[in-house]
Amino acid sequence: MKKKITLKEISKRFNVSISTVSKALKNSPEISEKTRKIIQDFAKEHNYKPNNIALSLKNQKTKNIGIILPEIVHYFFSSVINGVESYASEQGYNVIVCISNESFDKEVINMQMLANGSIDGFIMSLSKGTEKAQDFHHINEVIAQGMPVVQIDRITEEVDSDKVIIDDYHGAYHAVKYLIEKGRKKIALLTMPDYMSVGKLRTEGYLKALEEAGIPVEQDLILRIEDFYGGGDQIKALFEERSVDAVFGVTEFFAVTAMNIAQKMGISVPEDLSVIGFTDGIISMVSNPSLTTVSQHGEEIGKTAAKLLINRLEEDDDSTTPYVREVVKSTLVTREST
Amino acid sequence: MKKKITLKEISKRFNVSISTVSKALKNSPEISEKTRKIIQDFAKEHNYKPNNIALSLKNQKTKNIGIILPEIVHYFFSSVINGVESYASEQGYNVIVCISNESFDKEVINMQMLANGSIDGFIMSLSKGTEKAQDFHHINEVIAQGMPVVQIDRITEEVDSDKVIIDDYHGAYHAVKYLIEKGRKKIALLTMPDYMSVGKLRTEGYLKALEEAGIPVEQDLILRIEDFYGGGDQIKALFEERSVDAVFGVTEFFAVTAMNIAQKMGISVPEDLSVIGFTDGIISMVSNPSLTTVSQHGEEIGKTAAKLLINRLEEDDDSTTPYVREVVKSTLVTREST
Repeated sequence: MKKKITLKEISKRFNVSISTVSKALKNSPEISEKTRKIIQDFAKEHNYKPNNIALSLKNQKTKNIGIILPEIVHYFFSSVINGVESYASEQGYNVIVCISNESFDKEVINMQMLANGSIDGFIMSLSKGTEKAQDFHHINEVIAQGMPVVQIDRITEEVDSDKVIIDDYHGAYHAVKYLIEKGRKKIALLTMPDYMSVGKLRTEGYLKALEEAGIPVEQDLILRIEDFYGGGDQIKALFEERSVDAVFGVTEFFAVTAMNIAQKMGISVPEDLSVIGFTDGIISMVSNPSLTTVSQHGEEIGKTAAKLLINRLEEDDDSTTPYVREVVKSTLVTREST
Repeated sequence: MKKKITLKEISKRFNVSISTVSKALKNSPEISEKTRKIIQDFAKEHNYKPNNIALSLKNQKTKNIGIILPEIVHYFFSSVINGVESYASEQGYNVIVCISNESFDKEVINMQMLANGSIDGFIMSLSKGTEKAQDFHHINEVIAQGMPVVQIDRITEEVDSDKVIIDDYHGAYHAVKYLIEKGRKKIALLTMPDYMSVGKLRTEGYLKALEEAGIPVEQDLILRIEDFYGGGDQIKALFEERSVDAVFGVTEFFAVTAMNIAQKMGISVPEDLSVIGFTDGIISMVSNPSLTTVSQHGEEIGKTAAKLLINRLEEDDDSTTPYVREVVKSTLVTREST
């Protein structure tokens, strides 16, 4: 049997996005008639069948929702799952979780496995590997075949779907603004490498707050920490070399690590150093002093995503409700560290 | 169509355990010939078919492993999943996770959903609800139908299966002994209600260490905390009313909460109060001072369970390898709090 052509192969052939191919095949008016015809003819000629991943799902509702997340050790993603669970249970849906372990391959495998008749739709957050590879064909294929996907937190605009995001940019902006209003001027940023969309947006929020206040950006106050549970040495070196009066960490772990290192060096928190983290998890609550954080409301993100997905699952197959983008507002939870 | 009788109904009818029924139906020599015959006749008469949950799985290997856990917000269970993932991936297996949310009903639903063709075998830890209800028919039914189950951490002897446990009793015993050797005599215990097998074993370890050292047990030094994220008021009242020179918490959250409350009351840790927790998670590492803990090695538990399960899945169907019980040793990780 001849190998079936995939959406990705068609998109490469015409140098257009997978999303364009998918829309063309679905006769979307967004795509010009000419392009639609070329793509449809080519797909027909090459025996394109929209079933490389999902099997005939329309008539076979499982009442199961699949969640694919990069990891679950962090409080944020676990609380997202709790949020999905809680809304899904109320609506009579079950939840199946798969972990991509930040790997692109694992994300694709998980997706194929679940799409193969186990679930009706996905809620997902991209792995680091997928963000690095910028390859989203697996998600687009599933959507092209009629299985709804809701992207959360780590999302891509290359996939046309419902999205639930947190306002990372504004969350970071308000946190840093708060530090500035408290009179802090030498504000260190503990962030992640730029290919992580989340770290990038939070960094932009930090930069914006400084700019607005007329505080010059000092590159040596910005640490880019690759290892999620690392950064200790970099932070210690920063405190030794520079005078710093505040720290904004894009994760609560970075912030608490900085707080502990400072205290061991005799720098008192919050008197000499104000500290704010991102993600309002258990660490922030039990740290000493307790940590001021930008709360991401993981549970609310989960609930919102579940609601969007279940609404899609229960609408008519012919429905053309446009995709929505929900922004869950972060809030600053002030505690003892500021 | 007449409703099929279940293992549970048969076990009630003859006032024997589900495990006995299951063994009798499988002609196990452990059960007397007389009992076997009575049960088999009754099952036949009532149209018992061993397919209430699992469908014909023998010829339909999915290479997927199902994990059912009570919750995942805690570091211990997340690290168990990481352990399972890591071994399973090496062996070409995928992992699907379902959360029972400590609910018996949810555990049963998850089990039915996954057993229905999505996976080849289970790794599971009982929900609080299941421990309270003492109802394990869903697990016994799945096993009776040839699907292997590995129980971890929160287990029951009512289900005959492979088991991986941590030595809760010895872990607690050694932790309290360590406190006694450091000269501590008024050692408070922060534990859970007794119906939680884990809390019970750790309490027994505490009692044993005191007894051996000839230290009388004082009931008002033992707090039973129902709410996992609670206990603050009880702990504060204890410190106000009693002189305490050490605290052993059966979770790291209880221990860190106690440490923070003590420090706010001007009690210095570790000088005036030594503190040890159970479960070596992120909280213990980032607390200030860092917390001495009994490490549960969740990742190793996960790996061991995955290995046992995959071995079972890959052996002959006729294999009669006896069930094993693996004990993963806990270790005391000493840090600044003692």
